[in-house]
Amino acid sequence: MNGAQAVARTLADCGVTTCFANPGTSEMHFVAALDTVPELRGVLCLFEGVATGAADGYGRMTGRPAAALLHLGPGLANGLANLHNARRARTPLLAIVGDHATYHKRFDAPLESDIDALAGSVSGWVRRIARSCDAGSDAAEAVAAALRAPGQVATLILPADVTWTEGGGIAAPVAPRLPTPVPGEVIRDAAAALRSGEPAVILLGGTALRRLALQAASRAARATGARLLAETFAARHERGAGIPPVDRLAYLVEMAASQLDGTRHLILAGATAPVSFFAYPDKPSTPVPPGCQVHVLAEPADDVPGALAALADLVGRGQAPGSPQPPRPERPGLPDGELTAQTAAGVIGALLPDGAVVCDEANTSGIWLPAATASAPPHDWLSLTGGAIGQGLPLATGAAVACPDRPVLALEADGSAMYTASALWTHAREQLDITTVIFSNRAYAILTMELERTGAPASGSAARDLLDLSRPDIDFTALAAGMGVPASRATTAADFAAQLRHAFAEPGPHLIEAAMPPRG
Amino acid sequence: MNGAQAVARTLADCGVTTCFANPGTSEMHFVAALDTVPELRGVLCLFEGVATGAADGYGRMTGRPAAALLHLGPGLANGLANLHNARRARTPLLAIVGDHATYHKRFDAPLESDIDALAGSVSGWVRRIARSCDAGSDAAEAVAAALRAPGQVATLILPADVTWTEGGGIAAPVAPRLPTPVPGEVIRDAAAALRSGEPAVILLGGTALRRLALQAASRAARATGARLLAETFAARHERGAGIPPVDRLAYLVEMAASQLDGTRHLILAGATAPVSFFAYPDKPSTPVPPGCQVHVLAEPADDVPGALAALADLVGRGQAPGSPQPPRPERPGLPDGELTAQTAAGVIGALLPDGAVVCDEANTSGIWLPAATASAPPHDWLSLTGGAIGQGLPLATGAAVACPDRPVLALEADGSAMYTASALWTHAREQLDITTVIFSNRAYAILTMELERTGAPASGSAARDLLDLSRPDIDFTALAAGMGVPASRATTAADFAAQLRHAFAEPGPHLIEAAMPPRG
Repeated sequence: MNGAQAVARTLADCGVTTCFANPGTSEMHFVAALDTVPELRGVLCLFEGVATGAADGYGRMTGRPAAALLHLGPGLANGLANLHNARRARTPLLAIVGDHATYHKRFDAPLESDIDALAGSVSGWVRRIARSCDAGSDAAEAVAAALRAPGQVATLILPADVTWTEGGGIAAPVAPRLPTPVPGEVIRDAAAALRSGEPAVILLGGTALRRLALQAASRAARATGARLLAETFAARHERGAGIPPVDRLAYLVEMAASQLDGTRHLILAGATAPVSFFAYPDKPSTPVPPGCQVHVLAEPADDVPGALAALADLVGRGQAPGSPQPPRPERPGLPDGELTAQTAAGVIGALLPDGAVVCDEANTSGIWLPAATASAPPHDWLSLTGGAIGQGLPLATGAAVACPDRPVLALEADGSAMYTASALWTHAREQLDITTVIFSNRAYAILTMELERTGAPASGSAARDLLDLSRPDIDFTALAAGMGVPASRATTAADFAAQLRHAFAEPGPHLIEAAMPPRG
Repeated sequence: MNGAQAVARTLADCGVTTCFANPGTSEMHFVAALDTVPELRGVLCLFEGVATGAADGYGRMTGRPAAALLHLGPGLANGLANLHNARRARTPLLAIVGDHATYHKRFDAPLESDIDALAGSVSGWVRRIARSCDAGSDAAEAVAAALRAPGQVATLILPADVTWTEGGGIAAPVAPRLPTPVPGEVIRDAAAALRSGEPAVILLGGTALRRLALQAASRAARATGARLLAETFAARHERGAGIPPVDRLAYLVEMAASQLDGTRHLILAGATAPVSFFAYPDKPSTPVPPGCQVHVLAEPADDVPGALAALADLVGRGQAPGSPQPPRPERPGLPDGELTAQTAAGVIGALLPDGAVVCDEANTSGIWLPAATASAPPHDWLSLTGGAIGQGLPLATGAAVACPDRPVLALEADGSAMYTASALWTHAREQLDITTVIFSNRAYAILTMELERTGAPASGSAARDLLDLSRPDIDFTALAAGMGVPASRATTAADFAAQLRHAFAEPGPHLIEAAMPPRG
């Protein structure tokens, strides 16, 4: 057994069953090893950013790492933006980076580069396998590192000669670090804050946004009058009818400040203290009001649901334990008329299937979506966690591979879609049940807004041209068809509803270009 | 004047007139500054890898840096693979990376990441502007750094608050380090080797592959019986009728070893010592034969053309100075029949326009091209210098912006084209005179070959599926049309000739999908 086979076999034994791959020559022995380990399925991606984004979506939905197979430093570089998003999402993810043979590195061949520097920028754990006899044990440790609570990117560097040298040994799974229980005094401190009678907000993030944790948080809030808010960009938020609804902290720091205005106690449950996404002249870097005390109930690596349950038990005596929110199965009616961001959101709210996984990179076109989908059937909402656009289509790829029995809805801004559009080809090859909606407003609309917010001098055509996606307009139905995904274009709300209904009803991938008014 | 305006104004004053841009919020003040500096033209790219690859193509053709405007660490990451290629090409290139405001970094906002680690992996020079009063002088030094012989990537990090703070000062250009003259004793050593009567090869790279340097090298070779070879992947090779022809060192190390077999003196002129692109079990890491003495006539940073001219003068007494090769203006006839890599190369050789700039990322489909185009009218040949695929379409973008009066031909493998296909949109928006040929063999054909060469165990369907680009076949004419580039598909040599002739005759971008037999 060579080193590559030992890695592949060990990964499968450790529960890694999917490898999103964009391989090159240095990875050929690992690719060949997939034939010896049928439990480890290879999924071809035509760009590394698709592979890493897919591994992120897979990890968010399963809680287990997928592997992303990348080709040396440049392959890792191409996958780095979506690894950045995965790092922010705290997704368990295993990046496998092939490298030159150990003895070949000193020759500085054209593809030689500083893999370790790149890997270190996104990974909580990096290791270069030194010998084929270490391959299995290093792989097992890599999986445990990826699973280390709350989850992180682990990068395993695989020199080519290690992969082809015999003597590879399989290793048994290594137990990962589990979430840390929160000490009782910390829970009592939060309870005291909630009972102080002063205005309090519980900010929920990470695993606090799953159904049971939301129920506990809701119980604590109702018992004390505290308000609940969700972090702005959650890795995975379970929501919809029957699940306690939680508004998100706004993206714009001035709106977030307004949401937190008057708060005296901000209690963090799996979330970090909120900050402005960007800095702006004369705007604060954080929306937390002066004089507000920040209490850390549970760090992301802690047992966040357990802490919320304990908190609810402490403050919620007299409340029915776990009493659900009133179910609210009503759907909004189907809107009519022009297709805008608002009517499109209404259509999605009216038609979202039960159990959908929504991958949201709609950006400015998405502002109406949370309200429109609040009482849709239960679903998961996956956000752009790290701000590196080009995540949505890859994320949907991984979510669909992870959850073959659930419909996946990718909501994509047109500008963002163009970063990693080749994900559509993988949607087609794997016949994934993904409906992609492209909100085509032919602009980097968010930048038009941000240009004003940053106070940049009133701008002329040179600046405006760099925010404009028209000339030529992009025909997303042609792009999709070119990659094997059936596609249509909607220009009215009724069109959009009919096409969305059809896409949800028919298995396999579809794309709908929602042609919107500029900045619609 | 704010810091952004000071940077933009200084760049223009230093001769930087083009900025390939994919901006975000932190770059809004720099974008606005373009309206105040009309000499600095912004060219929008829909993905950072397009912007950096375009800046590479521009720098190779002009010898001056273009700027690539990138959005924080993830934007830099997306552009990194083509910066890696630019580093290997020794292209003068200025990466401008926007960053959070200095005071905002400690908040670890979602897009925060280690920009310096990424920049350091590809840049010869990195600086973060500390204050708006330094903005102009830092920009001037950045341009000088990019131009430092032989050329390199210089990265200037632009914190948002520096861009919007008043007090920016314009700076005058800084003189870059020029190529170093080669000492006479080094030239005499090379001359002695050439005159030793033992088999000698002069390996030409970098600026040795321009017309005048090639003439000098040819003179030295003819006077001494030495052979000339060109480095395998040249940044820019002037070739065609009237220019001394030089074969390239082969990509496959065993073929390169055969080219160098028996050589006792290998004289490096602007090239580095040759190495195998990858390592393989039981194959050497370098094709240089044992016992061959390697002489460094000129490092890439040296005055390579000057060293070759001095060498030719020393060994070439009695030869007519600078006597040209016999001009060989004959074209091959147009081939007929099936469209294959070989007949496609023949068509290109027969029709290549005078003064064309060829951006070659044809990979396995390109093996017949050098011979087929050797006696075409003079042209420049730009190669994939760093092995990071996804370079060709961006490179062509930059070459066409740099040389608006010359036809550009992008020769693209299908797999490589999918990395940065959105470059086609910029081709359309800027109406660049680029003819793109996609060699569509529906496979990572090079990996099919490499799988065998690495000795990976005979593989089954799991491995083969990861090298296969069919299921679904990609329709490149649909992709091109979707981005505003007129496109056609050729399935015979005659089709291809007619379509290529049309594309060359009509200004603006075109794409031809050359549908080849599998592994054709």
